[in-house]
Amino acid sequence: MKTAAKQDFPVSEIRRYLEPGPIVLVTSKWRRQVNIMTMGWHTVMEFSPSLVGCVIAGGNHSFELIRNSRECVINIPAAKMIDTVVGIGNCSGAEVDKFARFKLTEVKADKVKAPLIQECFASLECRLADDSLVEKYNFFIFEVVKAHVSTSPKYPQTLHYTGNGVFTVSGKNISRRALFRPEHL
Amino acid sequence: MKTAAKQDFPVSEIRRYLEPGPIVLVTSKWRRQVNIMTMGWHTVMEFSPSLVGCVIAGGNHSFELIRNSRECVINIPAAKMIDTVVGIGNCSGAEVDKFARFKLTEVKADKVKAPLIQECFASLECRLADDSLVEKYNFFIFEVVKAHVSTSPKYPQTLHYTGNGVFTVSGKNISRRALFRPEHL
Repeated sequence: MKTAAKQDFPVSEIRRYLEPGPIVLVTSKWRRQVNIMTMGWHTVMEFSPSLVGCVIAGGNHSFELIRNSRECVINIPAAKMIDTVVGIGNCSGAEVDKFARFKLTEVKADKVKAPLIQECFASLECRLADDSLVEKYNFFIFEVVKAHVSTSPKYPQTLHYTGNGVFTVSGKNISRRALFRPEHL
Repeated sequence: MKTAAKQDFPVSEIRRYLEPGPIVLVTSKWRRQVNIMTMGWHTVMEFSPSLVGCVIAGGNHSFELIRNSRECVINIPAAKMIDTVVGIGNCSGAEVDKFARFKLTEVKADKVKAPLIQECFASLECRLADDSLVEKYNFFIFEVVKAHVSTSPKYPQTLHYTGNGVFTVSGKNISRRALFRPEHL
């Protein structure tokens, strides 16, 4: 799958990619194990430091890799990757090397050991910032420490999961910038 | 604005409406004050109990109403309400009666004091379930205790905020149900 070149992107501005609520692919690495999982339960929590909260259920093979390494990468797939996304979500890293099975390309990250997925248009390197709600809710708060984003297209189509096997694809963009107070943008 | 009739919807299934990441309108009531705010930083956290986590910044007039009442309603506007959504996000409940200014209709909720917004296609009555991260991150964990959803359309177009005054509108739906393991739907 061809992908555009990526550039560094300000970590304080990653709400642009996460706030719309796309399904994401989370990569993790602990010792010699590498894995990928799909994740739809996430929210931006702060601009600076750049915080993202997400639920990673204890049943996932990735849970222990992330809890032990205290790191991950949040990769955002474009809509054309739908079958890869569904495939990754329906097998376990305990049985399958997902990079090999889904023909994805590992790229070395700058600040964490988990790899970036080259085929995704954005990759956010994350370090665990707060684990106080992990025991109770499987809720991890990460700090995005480095962001890589494709230079084009400007607004890639993304996948938004509704449950029951159905995804909504993102559609057109509408600007209402002129109606905002500057401090509310 | 015309709206379809609403029916009760199972609270354990509200991920269908929230997981795709729409911008929402949060209503609150404390003593005689009622308010509405826009909110884009939220995530589903659990099916049952039905938990939703969200960030409500301390600068919002709604913050104290919600912290004091320990309740709110999360209302989901369809895309046609974009100018109402932008308007609500760019004035303060400390100065304006937003229901009056934006010609919205208050509907009495069943289990909380905050009103539903009739013009929204879904309204989720919420009670504060966990405030342990409110001080540190303005992060509220609510339990959805009652859900009201319009009977049609089946998948209303929603608004997804990217920052900088730009919204992405939800597009077409794609089912990959046949490729899912039943327990992964």
